[in-house]
Amino acid sequence: MISEKMMELGKTRSVIREIFEYGNKRKQEIGADKVFDFSLGNPSVPAPDSVNQAICDILKEEPSTVLHGYTSAQGDFEVRKTIAEYINKTQSTNVSADDIYVTVGAAASLTISLHAISVSGDEIITFTPFFPEYRVFVEKAGASLVTVASRAEDFQVEVEAFKKAITPKTKAVILNSPNNPSGVVLREETIVNICKVMKEKQEEYGHEIFLISDEPYRELVYDDVKVPYLLHYYENTLVCYSFSKSLSLPGERIGYILVSNQMKQAKDVYAAVCGAGRALGYVCAPSLFQRVVARCIGQTGDISVYKKNRDILLAGLTECGYSCAKPDGAFYLFVKALEEDANAFCEKAKKYELLLVPGDDFGCKGYVRVSYCVSTEQIENALPAFKKLAEEYCKNK
Amino acid sequence: MISEKMMELGKTRSVIREIFEYGNKRKQEIGADKVFDFSLGNPSVPAPDSVNQAICDILKEEPSTVLHGYTSAQGDFEVRKTIAEYINKTQSTNVSADDIYVTVGAAASLTISLHAISVSGDEIITFTPFFPEYRVFVEKAGASLVTVASRAEDFQVEVEAFKKAITPKTKAVILNSPNNPSGVVLREETIVNICKVMKEKQEEYGHEIFLISDEPYRELVYDDVKVPYLLHYYENTLVCYSFSKSLSLPGERIGYILVSNQMKQAKDVYAAVCGAGRALGYVCAPSLFQRVVARCIGQTGDISVYKKNRDILLAGLTECGYSCAKPDGAFYLFVKALEEDANAFCEKAKKYELLLVPGDDFGCKGYVRVSYCVSTEQIENALPAFKKLAEEYCKNK
Repeated sequence: MISEKMMELGKTRSVIREIFEYGNKRKQEIGADKVFDFSLGNPSVPAPDSVNQAICDILKEEPSTVLHGYTSAQGDFEVRKTIAEYINKTQSTNVSADDIYVTVGAAASLTISLHAISVSGDEIITFTPFFPEYRVFVEKAGASLVTVASRAEDFQVEVEAFKKAITPKTKAVILNSPNNPSGVVLREETIVNICKVMKEKQEEYGHEIFLISDEPYRELVYDDVKVPYLLHYYENTLVCYSFSKSLSLPGERIGYILVSNQMKQAKDVYAAVCGAGRALGYVCAPSLFQRVVARCIGQTGDISVYKKNRDILLAGLTECGYSCAKPDGAFYLFVKALEEDANAFCEKAKKYELLLVPGDDFGCKGYVRVSYCVSTEQIENALPAFKKLAEEYCKNK
Repeated sequence: MISEKMMELGKTRSVIREIFEYGNKRKQEIGADKVFDFSLGNPSVPAPDSVNQAICDILKEEPSTVLHGYTSAQGDFEVRKTIAEYINKTQSTNVSADDIYVTVGAAASLTISLHAISVSGDEIITFTPFFPEYRVFVEKAGASLVTVASRAEDFQVEVEAFKKAITPKTKAVILNSPNNPSGVVLREETIVNICKVMKEKQEEYGHEIFLISDEPYRELVYDDVKVPYLLHYYENTLVCYSFSKSLSLPGERIGYILVSNQMKQAKDVYAAVCGAGRALGYVCAPSLFQRVVARCIGQTGDISVYKKNRDILLAGLTECGYSCAKPDGAFYLFVKALEEDANAFCEKAKKYELLLVPGDDFGCKGYVRVSYCVSTEQIENALPAFKKLAEEYCKNK
């Protein structure tokens, strides 16, 4: 009698969450330092000091009824202006406060965007591997998720495969670069090719196909790799951003949607974003943290830790005989399992107290996600366990 | 091609918001002290000092990665435990942390509850006058809103009218006491009668009918009036609470859903709440403010200001010849307009710089909502204007 779908969703804990809970239990049994938990994407570096400083300053400067009061539904005007100016400065764009809608984090950015643009029966395309909640968000918006396999060796998009998946029902394409779970950054060439197909198909079908750029990991890139800004490549773009990873604030739920003012329907799409936010119960984003991110924009936690972790883990795993596509960003490695069944591989890994996430839910069988947003010490201590796990497979060959 | 419904919702600003914007413009033209804006329900008293103190303490005590990190989707366990214990202490209930789901405010509480329990074609009943966003939330959940007129003289519920509205399609009944916009508190007798009908109809139809108690104004009651706690009257109850009004934190978006553990389906309904929260993109409620409300629970801003405002405004308006049902709580008066058309009445009021909200959107023609969460000075200065407005109607009789 109640919504079966919602009940099922509530009862099926995500695989990631299951492993995390197992890890907590195991830590109690044998000690936290003996369990190598690589399951969660929770930033391990603290927020920059400027965050707590900004909170204290704002509490002193702003009267309570203003600070803790409602902001406009789109977000405080000054906050949106600051965000727009920052984007213009760093990405050479020409966006304004009126193109920005402040949200309760990345999941809200995606959900609101999908409800704004989708009608029942629409198809939304994304590329494997992908964040599993995409399917939940897309289906709740009345659309269905169509997945296209990326190239196995480097997780860049094969244009021919993409062309086959796009249909007159395609309403949007979700890109996620740097990618969760692979850490791969889409190359400019890949993006140009994707946008070319989308432009041709828009022309052919006579309607818009939107590009949704899910980019909470934008700032988490290493070795001077550049993440192309999609507004420069495609007019019908919505950018879904979150401050969760850059400022290490995932619990505070703060991000934004940028509706490109280059789209012909920009005003209508922005209005639909406002309408979807309203209908889904998002009255406004948390008012204190709107001000905090405006003051701290452009800063990050000490992300050099992630680079160091990546380098140690990648070198260590490669030495043991593991392989994975080169991860230029985010804080994940997507490693080939040493047997076909990634679930079985993860079970074997547990014998060595290694907690890894099987790639099946990300749309790629035979892989595991290793989150390296952990202490460097954990990585160093875990490498012998990874080695023993690999040796077990060698012996059995 | 995009969602027309969402676009329309985004473009139609609420009447309240329109009036508020007009007020801001007018204040710039003639000076803020000359405009008597009674349109918004934004708390006018500051949060208690303990709120900002709690923020500062928590920043010092909790490590950044824990404090600003994800909590579990239902909310931090200790926070839920504190909320449950507070409810038990004040309402003599027996609820536990596992019955509580922490939300991003009252709108999220309602939206998530509606998506959890509703399937397409369901009917949700509420009583006039009602908060207009109910319709938006209910329709987005695929259900339709059925409204039942309350008794004109005191806005209590007529059981006979309610009986006629309830059908086999009725999935839930929303009660809002203290009420926005009337300030009326439902009497215990009224609640007993409503629940009796619901129990009979559950029996007759052979399925659950849920009671949703929307109670952000629970603590805002005056003169020792008691607000009955619905868990004691009906098993299939969901309480939707928000700290927005009690702690004067509407912008911070923090509240909770309590799923009564007395329902037979309690575990399933709680799971559906978790599933709906997940599908709608609510990852967790803001982590800092979860801790803040746990530390400040049971406190309020200085709500004696609201009582003072109510008493001055009610006496002043009555003296001028206005009438309204006795408002025992919240911070609104729902006043009979002096002509049938409340919109025309509000337009006339503007001549005296009085900004009032016509009751049509609340489902009651011929009334206006007067929000008294303003400075006492504004009320005192506005009374002569109310008097002149009334005199204009006397003259024209």
